[in-house]
Amino acid sequence: MKKVCIINGPNLNLLGNRENQIYGTKSIQDIEKDCLNIAKQVKLEIIFFQSNSEGEIINQIQQSTNFDFLIINAGALTHTSLAIYDALKMLKIPIIEVHISNIYKREDFRKNSFISPLASGIIVGFGTSVYELAIKSLLYLETK
Amino acid sequence: MKKVCIINGPNLNLLGNRENQIYGTKSIQDIEKDCLNIAKQVKLEIIFFQSNSEGEIINQIQQSTNFDFLIINAGALTHTSLAIYDALKMLKIPIIEVHISNIYKREDFRKNSFISPLASGIIVGFGTSVYELAIKSLLYLETK
Amino acid sequence: MKKVCIINGPNLNLLGNRENQIYGTKSIQDIEKDCLNIAKQVKLEIIFFQSNSEGEIINQIQQSTNFDFLIINAGALTHTSLAIYDALKMLKIPIIEVHISNIYKREDFRKNSFISPLASGIIVGFGTSVYELAIKSLLYLETK
Amino acid sequence: MKKVCIINGPNLNLLGNRENQIYGTKSIQDIEKDCLNIAKQVKLEIIFFQSNSEGEIINQIQQSTNFDFLIINAGALTHTSLAIYDALKMLKIPIIEVHISNIYKREDFRKNSFISPLASGIIVGFGTSVYELAIKSLLYLETK
Amino acid sequence: MKKVCIINGPNLNLLGNRENQIYGTKSIQDIEKDCLNIAKQVKLEIIFFQSNSEGEIINQIQQSTNFDFLIINAGALTHTSLAIYDALKMLKIPIIEVHISNIYKREDFRKNSFISPLASGIIVGFGTSVYELAIKSLLYLETK
Amino acid sequence: MKKVCIINGPNLNLLGNRENQIYGTKSIQDIEKDCLNIAKQVKLEIIFFQSNSEGEIINQIQQSTNFDFLIINAGALTHTSLAIYDALKMLKIPIIEVHISNIYKREDFRKNSFISPLASGIIVGFGTSVYELAIKSLLYLETK
Amino acid sequence: MKKVCIINGPNLNLLGNRENQIYGTKSIQDIEKDCLNIAKQVKLEIIFFQSNSEGEIINQIQQSTNFDFLIINAGALTHTSLAIYDALKMLKIPIIEVHISNIYKREDFRKNSFISPLASGIIVGFGTSVYELAIKSLLYLETK
Amino acid sequence: MKKVCIINGPNLNLLGNRENQIYGTKSIQDIEKDCLNIAKQVKLEIIFFQSNSEGEIINQIQQSTNFDFLIINAGALTHTSLAIYDALKMLKIPIIEVHISNIYKREDFRKNSFISPLASGIIVGFGTSVYELAIKSLLYLETK
Amino acid sequence: MKKVCIINGPNLNLLGNRENQIYGTKSIQDIEKDCLNIAKQVKLEIIFFQSNSEGEIINQIQQSTNFDFLIINAGALTHTSLAIYDALKMLKIPIIEVHISNIYKREDFRKNSFISPLASGIIVGFGTSVYELAIKSLLYLETK
Amino acid sequence: MKKVCIINGPNLNLLGNRENQIYGTKSIQDIEKDCLNIAKQVKLEIIFFQSNSEGEIINQIQQSTNFDFLIINAGALTHTSLAIYDALKMLKIPIIEVHISNIYKREDFRKNSFISPLASGIIVGFGTSVYELAIKSLLYLETK
Amino acid sequence: MKKVCIINGPNLNLLGNRENQIYGTKSIQDIEKDCLNIAKQVKLEIIFFQSNSEGEIINQIQQSTNFDFLIINAGALTHTSLAIYDALKMLKIPIIEVHISNIYKREDFRKNSFISPLASGIIVGFGTSVYELAIKSLLYLETK
Amino acid sequence: MKKVCIINGPNLNLLGNRENQIYGTKSIQDIEKDCLNIAKQVKLEIIFFQSNSEGEIINQIQQSTNFDFLIINAGALTHTSLAIYDALKMLKIPIIEVHISNIYKREDFRKNSFISPLASGIIVGFGTSVYELAIKSLLYLETK
Repeated sequence: MKKVCIINGPNLNLLGNRENQIYGTKSIQDIEKDCLNIAKQVKLEIIFFQSNSEGEIINQIQQSTNFDFLIINAGALTHTSLAIYDALKMLKIPIIEVHISNIYKREDFRKNSFISPLASGIIVGFGTSVYELAIKSLLYLETK
Repeated sequence: MKKVCIINGPNLNLLGNRENQIYGTKSIQDIEKDCLNIAKQVKLEIIFFQSNSEGEIINQIQQSTNFDFLIINAGALTHTSLAIYDALKMLKIPIIEVHISNIYKREDFRKNSFISPLASGIIVGFGTSVYELAIKSLLYLETK
Repeated sequence: MKKVCIINGPNLNLLGNRENQIYGTKSIQDIEKDCLNIAKQVKLEIIFFQSNSEGEIINQIQQSTNFDFLIINAGALTHTSLAIYDALKMLKIPIIEVHISNIYKREDFRKNSFISPLASGIIVGFGTSVYELAIKSLLYLETK
Repeated sequence: MKKVCIINGPNLNLLGNRENQIYGTKSIQDIEKDCLNIAKQVKLEIIFFQSNSEGEIINQIQQSTNFDFLIINAGALTHTSLAIYDALKMLKIPIIEVHISNIYKREDFRKNSFISPLASGIIVGFGTSVYELAIKSLLYLETK
Repeated sequence: MKKVCIINGPNLNLLGNRENQIYGTKSIQDIEKDCLNIAKQVKLEIIFFQSNSEGEIINQIQQSTNFDFLIINAGALTHTSLAIYDALKMLKIPIIEVHISNIYKREDFRKNSFISPLASGIIVGFGTSVYELAIKSLLYLETK
Repeated sequence: MKKVCIINGPNLNLLGNRENQIYGTKSIQDIEKDCLNIAKQVKLEIIFFQSNSEGEIINQIQQSTNFDFLIINAGALTHTSLAIYDALKMLKIPIIEVHISNIYKREDFRKNSFISPLASGIIVGFGTSVYELAIKSLLYLETK
Repeated sequence: MKKVCIINGPNLNLLGNRENQIYGTKSIQDIEKDCLNIAKQVKLEIIFFQSNSEGEIINQIQQSTNFDFLIINAGALTHTSLAIYDALKMLKIPIIEVHISNIYKREDFRKNSFISPLASGIIVGFGTSVYELAIKSLLYLETK
Repeated sequence: MKKVCIINGPNLNLLGNRENQIYGTKSIQDIEKDCLNIAKQVKLEIIFFQSNSEGEIINQIQQSTNFDFLIINAGALTHTSLAIYDALKMLKIPIIEVHISNIYKREDFRKNSFISPLASGIIVGFGTSVYELAIKSLLYLETK
Repeated sequence: MKKVCIINGPNLNLLGNRENQIYGTKSIQDIEKDCLNIAKQVKLEIIFFQSNSEGEIINQIQQSTNFDFLIINAGALTHTSLAIYDALKMLKIPIIEVHISNIYKREDFRKNSFISPLASGIIVGFGTSVYELAIKSLLYLETK
Repeated sequence: MKKVCIINGPNLNLLGNRENQIYGTKSIQDIEKDCLNIAKQVKLEIIFFQSNSEGEIINQIQQSTNFDFLIINAGALTHTSLAIYDALKMLKIPIIEVHISNIYKREDFRKNSFISPLASGIIVGFGTSVYELAIKSLLYLETK
Repeated sequence: MKKVCIINGPNLNLLGNRENQIYGTKSIQDIEKDCLNIAKQVKLEIIFFQSNSEGEIINQIQQSTNFDFLIINAGALTHTSLAIYDALKMLKIPIIEVHISNIYKREDFRKNSFISPLASGIIVGFGTSVYELAIKSLLYLETK
Repeated sequence: MKKVCIINGPNLNLLGNRENQIYGTKSIQDIEKDCLNIAKQVKLEIIFFQSNSEGEIINQIQQSTNFDFLIINAGALTHTSLAIYDALKMLKIPIIEVHISNIYKREDFRKNSFISPLASGIIVGFGTSVYELAIKSLLYLETK
């Protein structure tokens, strides 16, 4: 069974508490459960990781070399962290970048992503469903 | 049965002939067939439209008010056409923006999309599978 | 009797349907009727043209050499079309540029007009009355 | 009878003396007379004010709260004065911005107007007729 | 008893009348009274000055050499007046810059202050209380 | 008794050791004591937190939802951390931003603060007294 | 016999009527005749195409795959059309870009060409002779 | 005898009091006396004017049409005042721009002068001697 | 017989040795010979000059006043030398600018040419054939 | 014996695994051993530190006050971390900045280093030898 | 007797031949004679130097350490040569920068001078009289 | 024995005379001697070249093809000379770039080096020791 690492960056641990009209009402635990259900259906093994610390996220990325896919929502670090960019660049597995909200409708500084140029696919703005869509999208990468 | 309009912009009629390592080997007819199959499965009615002309694309968008969803890959016009932006802004139905290649790995002028701020969801870079993913993603919009 | 060509660009065919608080409730047919009435009063002959296609607008401008005045609302093409700029530059008759909404209150990309440097007069932001005002303003150009 | 305040900024007191090919041959006194005539026809009461001092213009704007309309040609201060912008923003009556010359044909620094985003209407470039056009345009604001 | 000059720039004479949600409901006379009360408590002599004219503000700054402190809210001139910058630079007494509203939440052109680099302290955004806070802050400057 | 969380960012643990002419001679322990004294006077409960790690600062902000006020000097992270910006945006309590030195007299990169647009008040440049001033300023927020 | 497609963009149909001091006095029909004569001499087959519509120009480029060379003067679209750029990029034959006037002496917006990076050769500014020069230049490409 | 108007802008009334290492020790009265002496030698009539107000400076420029030369040091308004630029542009007499300090060694915002493009000559950075040099330079303008 | 001066700038003396895929395999001596042959055919007298020194190139340009045409490939100085720009501007004879490689496919700093605005014609990117094409193009200038 | 602290930033713990053509084949342990050997030869005591966390790197810098030299390769944080800049600025010992790859050949965002302005010396691009070169370079600092 | 070195940069050897309306009709020999006459009157020894080569100008500046003053018109190198900037910075004698034409009325690239920040005085735009004015201005430097 | 060419650009012939706190007290002759000594130790043959002329430096680079290494300090030309960039790009031997002072602490225009992207190694800011360090660094290049 293929293995997927799902990484969430700063402040995503507060999903469901934060500005509901932008991020929806599901907590990160709800999302994790949904992902595990979907993963079971599509026969993937999933690990869920969240941290507010850039260093810990880099550590996790470095330890993901034995996974088959990485799904990442790096939160605000998407737009600023060259160190995460470097860590992802070293990783040889396909990367899917997701964002819950439509970052192009928001502040200008959210328009640039250092992760996008490294991604095999990018899914933005469907609300918390992006995690499910990202898991399903992995099938397309496999068959490519 | 809900209705979906899929619009493709300039040069997408040559898919499969064009730089294969970027756009894959499927022709636009292959993609249309795949979309019709998927649509049947998820019980959606689909119309497929392609044009190299900005004016005709605007006409088609204006005539899409009786559809339930719009999926659009505006090709190079994504980055330049304010007139398509205006046409999409008038439309009251959800819009999904797709791009076959990862536009963030390519020329700088492909980094800005006038369509993104108007989209309910954006799917970029999975190859020609983005059309199938976009159709499947509509389920998540419905249940929102 | 002097002749006036009034050209409207992309999406102006949907006036009255589109964001009412910005563009008002009159349709383009209503505006055309109002203009014909005014024109009769001030003894001008008027032709009304609308297209969503840059190419057709250029064709119409090129065929306007036997008119006495051109009134143009090029919609979103105002801000992007160098080809319309070139076509207008060749025309030897006075040009009046109009905009229904106050383009300076809106998105930044609407702040630049390629038509303005070529215009004898510019009327912006009175709602759909700009067409009537433009027709009346022609009197001032004649007596100049 | 509705009341209109017409404010002119720096150097407009020298109209008719200044670069005729740009500003025409009418003096500001000629324009004031023309405006009074027009105003009588359309049954409006008009006050005419000119100053070379930003401070005095702000004072006049602050004292215009009991007028029904403000017509303003702030001259070069159009492009630089945030303090006039603030004064106009406080005023609750409709504002018409006018410019005698086509400011978009001239130096680059004349392309930005701090007044435009606050205006109900903008009339540019018909020569000294812009004052008459502005007075006539008020009818359209009333009936809106 | 130490002496303080408090200078207010353009449009601050209309405080309380102007956009209440931004500037609060106190008039400039209310604020002056509050300041005199506070000043009595902390044993400072206060002079209150307001003008809409850059020139008069410069005159007042030049005449403040025999004061011990200057508190200044230059309004919109904060962002544009190099001449006030020069006048303040000549003054040898400590300067406190205040702003009633949070200028960093508003238009971009309010983000730059020519006064800030010359200030001993800057207090922004507490509503009209900034004047009281500024007077109290002078104690900390004295004991420095 | 209302509760206040005071957060200090990177390198502020070395206050008093660092460039004295800019930051003064008080250590962070001295400042903490001063704050506790002032707080007692104004009947507020205070918690003092410092970290060199962005992740830990975000954790602390997330845990401040049961406080009444947040005072923050994020040090150099003020100018770079979108993740702290996001964490503060989620917090529903008033935020006071402080800086010991006048950041507008220093390197250009200190001129932009991602925290300022989220603050109820900003106090800059009075030396280490900014903490006392910030505590006192809370009274004004309460009575608003 | 090798085949050459010569494409002309918007407003070039009015050559000879337009600003003579820039574009010369030859009409596009004159130029076509000259080209046919030259082509006969150098034993090349030539097709001449002009359109004011971006979409039609893209169609023509897409249909040029069975030609041996493309000569293109895209007029104002040279500087704005990413869609033409994409169409040319797909074409595998050598492209010669020509401009009648010296675009570097004119408006700034004519300084950028999206076609130049795709061209085997670029000929600018000899007046209407650029077409003849371009045809002759093809000999050098053949022998390369 | 030819007549010269010498205009000094904001803060130049404090010359000699202000940062001596930049502006020298002469007061504006000293400079006026020096200028009158020189003028007598070279047989010119001189009027000396200083104001801190942009409006008054514009008034003075407008009233200088019957002078033969204008010498102007507009102080900080040099870099910001488009209204002074407009007033000077209307004046038909030769203009000499002077600056006491070397403005190119100072803050960046002093590098742009709106007056320079209108000047017949510019003299910068010799200290308060620039006024004498400017008067002497007029001889060269006469004999041109 | 008309006389042509052909000037080559820095590093063009190493043609044929340098990156062959960009500059081809012909040496500058080969090119000179080719040019002399062509010139004989078209009855022109040619002088060939190369230098790595900006000063010597300026000297040569200054001494070209008795030539009928100048052909120049200024190498890297094309993009940086205002002094060559000034020298060429003084010359009253037609100038043809050539570049062997397509400078628009290369580093960004090669996109600006200070020579282009002064040229009667510009030929870019046909490899070393540009010299022959330039000589032939002179015929079109003569008959213009 | 003098003491040297060598600090390595994010992702340098993976040296030898990462893109070999850029970073070479030595692991960070290999480099540490090489450094210890060299240090023994030149009689310096060395401590080697690596972290993926900005906060821990700042902690280590703050604890380096009793060292004689600091050698730092901050990885991607070189280009983004103002907090490391502040920490280094407080340190009174000489700093040597090193980079294994030539950062000027790579992405644009690697061109700016916040560490460089604080360094006594900078060594870039010799592969993993930069650590040895840096240790040897300390001799030159001592004898300065 | 004090000694003055006058340096002229590229293309100034052609004065009098070049665009007369900008540079006047005097040749550089005429100017040299005028300068020698003036110098005799004011008892200064003068050396006149001109070169089209940056290197030779640097050599001359380096050899000017035994002069008392340097007057320099570096022509187009004014705007581009950092090497001349470095040479002038090493020189300990006062430098006067002159320009014959008003460089602020001309191309944008003439607006920046690398020499100005190093000059004791700058004289621009009086035609070829700037050399005489510069020599006379030296008296003011001596008595400073 | 391997051969090294050491090239120094403009103004480096004056080392030791120029701003000592930046460049140290050693003359270029002292440095040459030091280099010869070091070279003897490490068994390298060295040639030392300095010129103030860009053209001569290019000539020397072109003649260095039979050397094994090039060490270059191009002085101010580092930041401006595309022609030196081109000359170095043609050279197939390893290039070491050195700068005596820390160019990142100085004027902004010294932050860009056209040489850096072409260098095998870069050594900046150790004072005149950079030449010795550069020679020693060559050993690491050999063993790579």
